[in-house]
Order: sequence, then C-alpha cells, then structure tokens
Amino acid sequence: MAFTHRRVRRVRQLVAKRAMRRSEGVLVAEGADVIGAAVAAGAPVESLYWAPEAAGMPAVSALVDAVIDAGGRAYPLAPGVMERVADTVTPQPVIAVIGHEMAGLDALDGATLVLVLDEVRDPGNAGTLIRAADAAGATAVVCTAGTVDPTNPKAVRASAGSIFHLPVVEGVPSDDVVEVLAEHGLPTAVTVARGGEDYAAVDWRGPTAVVVGNEAHGITAGIERQADRRVSIPMPGAAESLNVALAAGIVLFEIARQRRVVTGPEESSDLAPRP
Amino acid sequence: MAFTHRRVRRVRQLVAKRAMRRSEGVLVAEGADVIGAAVAAGAPVESLYWAPEAAGMPAVSALVDAVIDAGGRAYPLAPGVMERVADTVTPQPVIAVIGHEMAGLDALDGATLVLVLDEVRDPGNAGTLIRAADAAGATAVVCTAGTVDPTNPKAVRASAGSIFHLPVVEGVPSDDVVEVLAEHGLPTAVTVARGGEDYAAVDWRGPTAVVVGNEAHGITAGIERQADRRVSIPMPGAAESLNVALAAGIVLFEIARQRRVVTGPEESSDLAPRP
Repeated sequence: MAFTHRRVRRVRQLVAKRAMRRSEGVLVAEGADVIGAAVAAGAPVESLYWAPEAAGMPAVSALVDAVIDAGGRAYPLAPGVMERVADTVTPQPVIAVIGHEMAGLDALDGATLVLVLDEVRDPGNAGTLIRAADAAGATAVVCTAGTVDPTNPKAVRASAGSIFHLPVVEGVPSDDVVEVLAEHGLPTAVTVARGGEDYAAVDWRGPTAVVVGNEAHGITAGIERQADRRVSIPMPGAAESLNVALAAGIVLFEIARQRRVVTGPEESSDLAPRP
Repeated sequence: MAFTHRRVRRVRQLVAKRAMRRSEGVLVAEGADVIGAAVAAGAPVESLYWAPEAAGMPAVSALVDAVIDAGGRAYPLAPGVMERVADTVTPQPVIAVIGHEMAGLDALDGATLVLVLDEVRDPGNAGTLIRAADAAGATAVVCTAGTVDPTNPKAVRASAGSIFHLPVVEGVPSDDVVEVLAEHGLPTAVTVARGGEDYAAVDWRGPTAVVVGNEAHGITAGIERQADRRVSIPMPGAAESLNVALAAGIVLFEIARQRRVVTGPEESSDLAPRP
C-alpha cells in the first residue's frame, strides 16, 4: 500500500512538473482514447492506473491487456485516488505514464512541412495544433522557448495522441528559429491576422515552415521581421479573427491540398474552381 | 442592496437556464472582449456588472461608457459576488446581460452558405463553430434539436462575439433539416471522417449548407441518408480525425477560397497550383 502511495505521488508530480517529465523522459496521458492512441503508435506505456469505475469498461480492459503485453504495468486505484492525481475537475477513469522524448533539431532534416508554435500559451491550443499538424502530414512541430509545454497533460489530451505521431522540438529561442529552419532548407511563413498575402495565392509545393503566434499578441517581432513571407486568411464575414488552431489548420490543409493535386494519385481532379 | 441582490440572482439564473434566457430574450456574455464585440455589433446591452478588480481597467471603463451611452445600465459588484455569478472557475471581471433573439427560418431566405451543427454537445465547440462560420462569411447557422444551446455562456465566449454577427436558428429536428434547407434552395453536404468525396474537389460556388456532427458519433443517420453529398478531408498524416471545429473551418474556408477566386476582385490570382 505504501508502495502504491509512492507510485501515485510520482504520477501526481509528473502531472504538475515539466522538469520531472523531462528528466524521466516520460509524459502523462489521461483517458482511454489518448492512451490507446499511444499504444497504437508504439509508444512505451510504462504504467497504467485505473479508477474503480473503470473496472467494467471494455476499452479499459483492452488497454490493460495491451499495456501488459507490451511489458508495461497496470494498477487499480482505490476510490477517490484518481481525483487527487489527475489534472482535471472530472478526471478520466484511466491515466498512464508513457515514455516520450522530445526531438532534437535533426528531426528537421529533410522536412517538407513544419509547424512552429511561437509563444502559444494555452495547452489545449498547443495540443490541437499538434493534432492539426499531424493530420495535415507535417514532418515535425517546433515550439519556441516561450511556448507552453507540449507534454502538459492538457496538451497531450488535446493532441488526441498526435504527440506520439510526430517529432516535437522545444525550446528554440524565437529570435533564432527562422535561421534554424533556413539551415534545414525551410523558408518561413508567418500567419498574421491581416495585411499578409492571401494564403491561398501562395505556391506551397516546396518545403516550408508555418508559424502561428500567441493567442493575444500574435507572432513575436523577431520572427515576423526575419520571416520569408507573411500570409493572412481573408475573412469575408464580420469576425475579427480566427482562433490560432483554426488559422493553422486552414493554412496547413491548403498546403496539403496543393501538394495532393500535384503529386497525388488523382491528378485528374483539378482543384481549381471550374469555369 | 436587496435590489442588487435580486439583480445578481437573476444573472446567475440566466447563466444556468436556457429556458429563462429564451423567455426573456437575452443571453449572458462574460469578458470585456466578447461584450465589446456585442457593443460593436449593435447588440442591446441591457445591463453590465463589474467586479472590484475591474475598476481600473481601461477596457472596462470604455465598456461602461459605451453601455450607458446606448441606454443600458452598469453596476459594480461587491468583492466575491462575481465568483458566485459567473460560469467559470476563474471568472472574467465583467459580465453582461444582452438582448438576443434566436432567428427564424426566414434567416435562410436567399442564403448562400449555411453551417449546420448536428448534435454538437460541447459549448466551446459550438461557439468556435459559430465564429468560424462568421469568419468564412456564412449567411446563417442552424442548430439541430440535439445541439447544445448556442447561448450557453461558454458558447458565447468561444464565439468571440460572432453570435451577435449572424442569425442562429435552433431546434430544427435532425430528420427535417435537409428538407428545410432544400426548401430554401440549399443542397446539403455532410462532413464525414472518411469515405466521402475529397472536399477540395467539390465545386462549392453555388449555395450550400455544410453539416458537422457530434464530437463522438458524427452526423445523425437521417441527415447522412438524406444529404446531397458526403465530403471528407483527406489526411496525409497519422492522426485519425480532426476536431469538429477544425474540420468545419477547413471546409468553410475552402468554400470561401473558391468563391473568392471566381467572384473576388483579384481575378488574376489563379489559386490552382502553378506548374
């Protein structure tokens, strides 16, 4: 029981402390969907904990089996313990400690599409952005030094497992990131609320990095000054702006669209509007 | 003081009760940004309440002036009162009761782009979807009967004021919505995670309604059966799906892109990838 107590305390600390996650090379994922995505992606689930109410759930039973088969451990928690461990007011019935290493800059070697998060502060946005980058086929994600930790449990949850699908580089200073990307053959396009080129009028078929900025303040000045291009999404309606995840998704999927038309199997489906 | 107490109790009830919001023809908006967007849109702010910590904020002072100029009332709250009224754990320092009527079906007359929320359950998603529809120039939003209330304070906040920009119709039964849209000249396209036409290969220049479904279960069977077309967003990466707001935004802005190319001022910017 004391043994379990020590384990639970460690999970709680891992939920709260970025430095401890890094030093141990793990992150904490909450919920059967995200943990299932980690298992499917081959991520090493070190330990799994489930609350009493999860005992009868087929999804949780399947997870327990999968984790043990892969060499991990699984522990039931006493009533009320999950509430003290988890990050949320209404915790998921299952939580896992999963091995996860941040990527080095070599993840950018040969990259053709990179999403850069510049001082994004909300962990939910960070996770949603990683999910969008993954869905759009990005090679990697880069977080500047002022960006929220992408292994924050809220970010992991919002990524819906995408954090296990593609390399995420962190801690690149905003003032250096354009140069770092250029060294890897990636010109940098920043998204700005207004005044940039129409994002849909850009030829996106070559390698590129796309930068999205802070929810309130946008891109940092250094990046905007050094970037190769500034793009905006024309908004025909009355809304003043788009949220950062939506803006990134729209640009990333325009890039995917253009690359699909040119290189995909369905060459005949010319996606320009027909006259 | 008893008078203030009655007012505060009413606001708290309006935060919680959809039926009361409807019967009084109001909604509750939290935060200077959203309330400011309501004022800018000409929405009638009936009453504004601010917490003591908001007293020195220029944005709040400007709001108070604007509300009073427009014939509304503004009340300071005693310390700790906002925490009892607001919807969130960390409440915004300012909250307002704003006149707001749901639209009737005549809002669909002459519509060229309508977004339909079919059993969307999360109020944050509903608000983000309304914001995306507004930004993309949609004429109206339709919520099926099983969709979360778009005047839920969380939805209002996530809409970033867009709820004041375009008409929102609610309560249309899922089984009837395709027919209702058709009567207004709007063919219906449903978004499905996979198996539909490539959304970018569709000619979107004519009037259309786009339907997004429940976060977990997608579009209801009746709508999917009756719809004129099913579209999907090809995902070159490993992510299994996109969140509903992102999927809607990608489709809506592809529609805006196609219409801009054909009818916009910059006819020369052919948005097909150049050879």
